[in-house]
Amino acid sequence: MASQRMNNHAVEVVFLFVMLAAFSGSVVGQNATASLAERLGYSRDAKLLIVHADDLGMTHAVNAASIQGLESGLVSSASMMVPCPWFPEIADYARNHPDADLGLHLTLTSERVYLRWGPVASKEKVPSLLDPAGYFFHDWSAGTHINPKEAELEIRAQIERAYAMGVHPTHLDSHQYRLFASGKELFEVVLRVAHEYQLPVFVARDWFAEHPYLESSLSRNDIVVDHTVTIEPTVPAEKWAEFYTNAIRSLEPGVTEFVIHLGYDDEEMRAATRERDTWGAAWRQRDFDFFTGAEFGKLLQRQNIKLITWRELARAAKQE
Amino acid sequence: MASQRMNNHAVEVVFLFVMLAAFSGSVVGQNATASLAERLGYSRDAKLLIVHADDLGMTHAVNAASIQGLESGLVSSASMMVPCPWFPEIADYARNHPDADLGLHLTLTSERVYLRWGPVASKEKVPSLLDPAGYFFHDWSAGTHINPKEAELEIRAQIERAYAMGVHPTHLDSHQYRLFASGKELFEVVLRVAHEYQLPVFVARDWFAEHPYLESSLSRNDIVVDHTVTIEPTVPAEKWAEFYTNAIRSLEPGVTEFVIHLGYDDEEMRAATRERDTWGAAWRQRDFDFFTGAEFGKLLQRQNIKLITWRELARAAKQE
Repeated sequence: MASQRMNNHAVEVVFLFVMLAAFSGSVVGQNATASLAERLGYSRDAKLLIVHADDLGMTHAVNAASIQGLESGLVSSASMMVPCPWFPEIADYARNHPDADLGLHLTLTSERVYLRWGPVASKEKVPSLLDPAGYFFHDWSAGTHINPKEAELEIRAQIERAYAMGVHPTHLDSHQYRLFASGKELFEVVLRVAHEYQLPVFVARDWFAEHPYLESSLSRNDIVVDHTVTIEPTVPAEKWAEFYTNAIRSLEPGVTEFVIHLGYDDEEMRAATRERDTWGAAWRQRDFDFFTGAEFGKLLQRQNIKLITWRELARAAKQE
Repeated sequence: MASQRMNNHAVEVVFLFVMLAAFSGSVVGQNATASLAERLGYSRDAKLLIVHADDLGMTHAVNAASIQGLESGLVSSASMMVPCPWFPEIADYARNHPDADLGLHLTLTSERVYLRWGPVASKEKVPSLLDPAGYFFHDWSAGTHINPKEAELEIRAQIERAYAMGVHPTHLDSHQYRLFASGKELFEVVLRVAHEYQLPVFVARDWFAEHPYLESSLSRNDIVVDHTVTIEPTVPAEKWAEFYTNAIRSLEPGVTEFVIHLGYDDEEMRAATRERDTWGAAWRQRDFDFFTGAEFGKLLQRQNIKLITWRELARAAKQE
């Protein structure tokens, strides 16, 4: 654990930093005197975990597996893709389960080949987001010029459709991290809209080194998750449980979000993802098997890890 | 058979009618001197059948079952819903199987609850087609005012997306018959666009009595299928094969289109259609089982029925 590794010198440095921050009042992105865990009412060394399923709405198999995950009690949160064909199914679930922790997975890409989606906004108003057939781009490359005004319009349209369908999201995040990893302008669009709707945005301190604009754009009361863990294509299928088990055993104090992708390895999911294995049907089934399996629950207990939700984070932010 | 039932008096009446038609040149919708079968190069009493699968693109299960039907050789034609999420999958199939007889199933409704779709055109340009969340209406009621100009814009957008994706449709028809059964104005929109793209439109003579504007709007060279057969919710599941067997045994001479709905009774299809049984997962599995079953092929042979395609009809129309 980080606290055990800390030597006396480090403790002095942290103390100095905290005092400076309190004096200057200029530390952004986090209340300088209290950790996120403390803002939530836990001790500074508590290990708090959001197990978060992405991509709800993409297929029925993703919806069904994610609902099963949420109802197992071991998946604490999830987010929904409004432009996707099965959004009405998960919106119906959200309306009928107002306590479920469901946010919006803001989506400006349509990365698959055989199953695709396009904007919620009027196409003519968001041309920079669209390929020649009118779908979102498969991917954004260096040559893709995304107009931030159009991104904002589309993000607002997605949020407005969710509310129009009776959904009250608990938080916002970004499909494929596109809106966070593509420069300051797009991130500030998300942040501005999030503040307006009073919704927390999933940002992790882990990302600040690579994308310094994230930290500099955040305001004092924005939530910053301490750590995030997500499995990558470099992990072979047979090492799946080992990867997650290690991540849980070495969990740092503070708030961590596990970003996972649930689905069933069935006909629909295989067809939807058949052009590549990454984040494909078998991948999602492996995530499902681990996070709804008996071993995961026991690991959480043994490591004294508490599952939390975005609703709790939002509440903490609003109280300040 | 109708020809056997014909008495001498009837033959005289028909002869008179043909002579009158040839003289006046005013018979619309069909070359008065030749039946559709004859225009296709068959004898007047040939029994020609298009076995046509609707709704391709709606789900993966519909695509997979319809492709299997087409490849069995016993389903001769199908049409695709461009606004639907799995259109890219069937468009990919169409590009790679240029001989497959695939038309466009023009779609202005989104009749399901958990899986939905909206326009291909820019939303702001087609407001009369959309519900408050921006999907196509579930259904059109007496109070739904569909602006024909907006319908035309959307139809053109669907056709243009298909061509943009490398699809060359063989014909046009209308999802839930909405564009044919909702008045002269909408039908004339379809017809105008179809003429422009030189695509035949599925119209059956059976419909003229209920919708006389169909006949009066058609021009001389438009294709008119003589009969159409589609199973209705009044047929109980256990009578499915009996219904189709009777329809095949009593097939009239001329061109008949069987409008069928293929799909697998799997998780995706059940979820997509779970709000009602009509045209649901089990319904589509029953259609699939009958039309790809050994008995259907034998019946066609015994009754001397020849399967034809829309490509053949289009070719016949263009030769005149």
